Amino acid sequence: MSINAHGTESDALQAYGTALLRKTTRYVILFTMNIIEPRVLKGFRDFPPSAEIERKSLMEKIEASFRSFGFAPIDTPALEYADILLGKGGGETEKQVYRFTDNGGRDVALRFDLTVPFARFVAGHRAELTLPFKRYHIAKVWRGENTQRGRYREFTQCDVDIVGSNSAASDFEILLVIHDTLKAIGAGGVTIRLNHRGLFNRFLARLGVLDASADILRLVDKLAKIGRDAVAERLSAIAGDKAERILQFIEVTGSFEDVLERLTGLSGGTSPESERLALLRAFMLQHAGGIAASCVLDPSVTRGLDYYTGVVYETFLNDMPDIGSVCSGGRYDNLASLYSKENISGVGTSIGLDRLIAALEALGALERQSSYARVAVACVQETDAGAYQAIARRFRDAGLACEVFFTEEKLAKQYMAAEKKGVRWLIIPSASHPLEEKLALRNLAARETSEALSLEEALSRVQAALEA
Amino acid sequence: MSINAHGTESDALQAYGTALLRKTTRYVILFTMNIIEPRVLKGFRDFPPSAEIERKSLMEKIEASFRSFGFAPIDTPALEYADILLGKGGGETEKQVYRFTDNGGRDVALRFDLTVPFARFVAGHRAELTLPFKRYHIAKVWRGENTQRGRYREFTQCDVDIVGSNSAASDFEILLVIHDTLKAIGAGGVTIRLNHRGLFNRFLARLGVLDASADILRLVDKLAKIGRDAVAERLSAIAGDKAERILQFIEVTGSFEDVLERLTGLSGGTSPESERLALLRAFMLQHAGGIAASCVLDPSVTRGLDYYTGVVYETFLNDMPDIGSVCSGGRYDNLASLYSKENISGVGTSIGLDRLIAALEALGALERQSSYARVAVACVQETDAGAYQAIARRFRDAGLACEVFFTEEKLAKQYMAAEKKGVRWLIIPSASHPLEEKLALRNLAARETSEALSLEEALSRVQAALEA
Repeated sequence: MSINAHGTESDALQAYGTALLRKTTRYVILFTMNIIEPRVLKGFRDFPPSAEIERKSLMEKIEASFRSFGFAPIDTPALEYADILLGKGGGETEKQVYRFTDNGGRDVALRFDLTVPFARFVAGHRAELTLPFKRYHIAKVWRGENTQRGRYREFTQCDVDIVGSNSAASDFEILLVIHDTLKAIGAGGVTIRLNHRGLFNRFLARLGVLDASADILRLVDKLAKIGRDAVAERLSAIAGDKAERILQFIEVTGSFEDVLERLTGLSGGTSPESERLALLRAFMLQHAGGIAASCVLDPSVTRGLDYYTGVVYETFLNDMPDIGSVCSGGRYDNLASLYSKENISGVGTSIGLDRLIAALEALGALERQSSYARVAVACVQETDAGAYQAIARRFRDAGLACEVFFTEEKLAKQYMAAEKKGVRWLIIPSASHPLEEKLALRNLAARETSEALSLEEALSRVQAALEA
Repeated sequence: MSINAHGTESDALQAYGTALLRKTTRYVILFTMNIIEPRVLKGFRDFPPSAEIERKSLMEKIEASFRSFGFAPIDTPALEYADILLGKGGGETEKQVYRFTDNGGRDVALRFDLTVPFARFVAGHRAELTLPFKRYHIAKVWRGENTQRGRYREFTQCDVDIVGSNSAASDFEILLVIHDTLKAIGAGGVTIRLNHRGLFNRFLARLGVLDASADILRLVDKLAKIGRDAVAERLSAIAGDKAERILQFIEVTGSFEDVLERLTGLSGGTSPESERLALLRAFMLQHAGGIAASCVLDPSVTRGLDYYTGVVYETFLNDMPDIGSVCSGGRYDNLASLYSKENISGVGTSIGLDRLIAALEALGALERQSSYARVAVACVQETDAGAYQAIARRFRDAGLACEVFFTEEKLAKQYMAAEKKGVRWLIIPSASHPLEEKLALRNLAARETSEALSLEEALSRVQAALEA
């Protein structure tokens, strides 16, 4: 296969070649030859080791936090029947979906979120599941979004949901999961902006505009994005002279208690919805783990999506509020209505990993490394590779990743290669007696080489240094 | 959306409804209503918690083993340009690939293995990579294979490769990775059947049939599957009267040393290839970690795929040889030749996770559990959920996953729910003083409830029991 067979790519290749010319002429030669340019699709990314170790480290912390609350993992196919995924999706969703006909003539699509597959999962596995069912799912999803908005077409979502419980305790647990997980990954202080859709609807009913509720909620959700004036204008078109009163409702601010009191009044007095919020507040104060100080009752938070019916929330990093919500969610009444007549209510949240990584990078909260190994065995004599692996095994058995260098090169060169990889200690075996445990330990940062040590002595020194 | 809109599905739905009728009439009612059947594509699977915890546990052990050798993770897109993925693929590969035109008119495909994307990655990131480059990649791949052969269309591969080193030490390291990783996951004894393609080609050259090498290697690879007679017949068609001598070569058995001596003789005496095998053998004996006893030199192992040029291997579980190779691989001379003129040689292996899980399940080496939580807090009073989460937090901070029950139900019912989830200890807070740390600890297996304890006492008891 040659680039000539791909006419439309030729121009891009030329441009790429020219760009590389500034760096080196070597590659230009490659691209004028019989080579396919090793490109990736727009909106898709490679993750080299330093980026992937960072992502994995973050996912592992998120996963550990989810597990600590008793959430269990599930997995579902990347590819599903298109009608399963798009049953509830509107036109906007459909346009963004990777949908095609497979070799068997089936109309299929790549999942665009983890919620729809979860709904299908719950309906399909209902008989095996004990409710409440608490699951997490960390996986990739695909959307053909406009990449000019800085969005990716392949990205990772981290979802937790509790289905089959309508208790305030389950609402509270999701708030805690958000709070504790973001704390565990070092995101600093967070503000969870919380609201109750039912309370808002109660207020709209009092105003006599409940029929327009979905449109109003979607509009209010855009307040931060398009500004008060634009929202006011469009609200007038929907709700006439009630627009100003709606704006007053969503602009109530103050302490959780004060806002709750005002909203309760505006929505016609104490209701199950106001009582739910009061109970959540009581739980926050009981818990005393920082959650009370992190939660703000904010009537302007509505979440655009239709399926939420109860509490809704958006989460912002105090040190980087401008990047927007890193974690949002809420309570829905009927998750699996497309696939089942049984009402299964639930509450959940989704962490957008990519936005979070961008934020943590900007905050300097992530440390890049290109390998897990802090120890390596130098190659003094290539015929001793078996002995070197035996030395490395002792470190591996003790839980320390340990590389073995393959090529007999000057030690100075091996020091440099090790440092470049992030290795801190290099073990230098004896040339004459590799198995007699006479080895030296090089501390690369301190540029010091030890006296002859036994393997156990070398291990102890490294362990002691790592614990210090 | 309704089932009426999907004519072709109606029959399947009817059949499904009828099948369910035997169990319960309730679902039949659902399927005659406005519901989409929550089905998954053939060859694709849901993983409910018990299966997913098992898979994750296995992947985590495999990953820990890869990391311990200093391999670093990378990730690449699930979707790539079709010409990138299929450049080297023959007709058979192409038919099995999920390939389509995206909304932007691009010819794209889902990756069908992790090797081709890795080759593209190495070519594209060559300037950033320090050689030798050691990466692992554990991810899903997709093939539209015939599911009747018990194959899945979505499955997980676990690949490790070392590129940029042609040393025997790197060949040896991959053998060790296979050996130590399978040991770490509890697969029991393994036999790594090893060969050198170059040595075989040397023999074929002596016979004067080197031109037919690719066909002969592919045929020999089928020996176990189609039997000696069928191979002999087809070999005669390719190699004429040399067929019998080829069969004699690949049927040499005995100790590693004996087989190596025979093959060296048959291939014309000592060569770089025979010396490479001798060096690998010396490394095995030096290492003394069980690897020497696990490796067999087997000239019938050729690996069907064309791109291998050096050592090749297949790995079998001693307790389940019939399931075939769970881990195969070898050395290739020019990984990225499609995308780069630079020769980058390497050696690697791929563990097929699904086959391994099937084997381990059959061996009883896997334990199913549906949650990570061994401890839970009972719900004695629903208004105390905040206090219960504070109790759970203490366990979580100590590294123990801890659930909180949401609903005030009889304790006997909560005991049952906890046991069903795999929880071993249930904390029963005081109804009147949930925050005064007077709680009881229920040992569910022993059916014993403790006297009143402080939170710290309860934690200590659970920790002591887990360590015992």
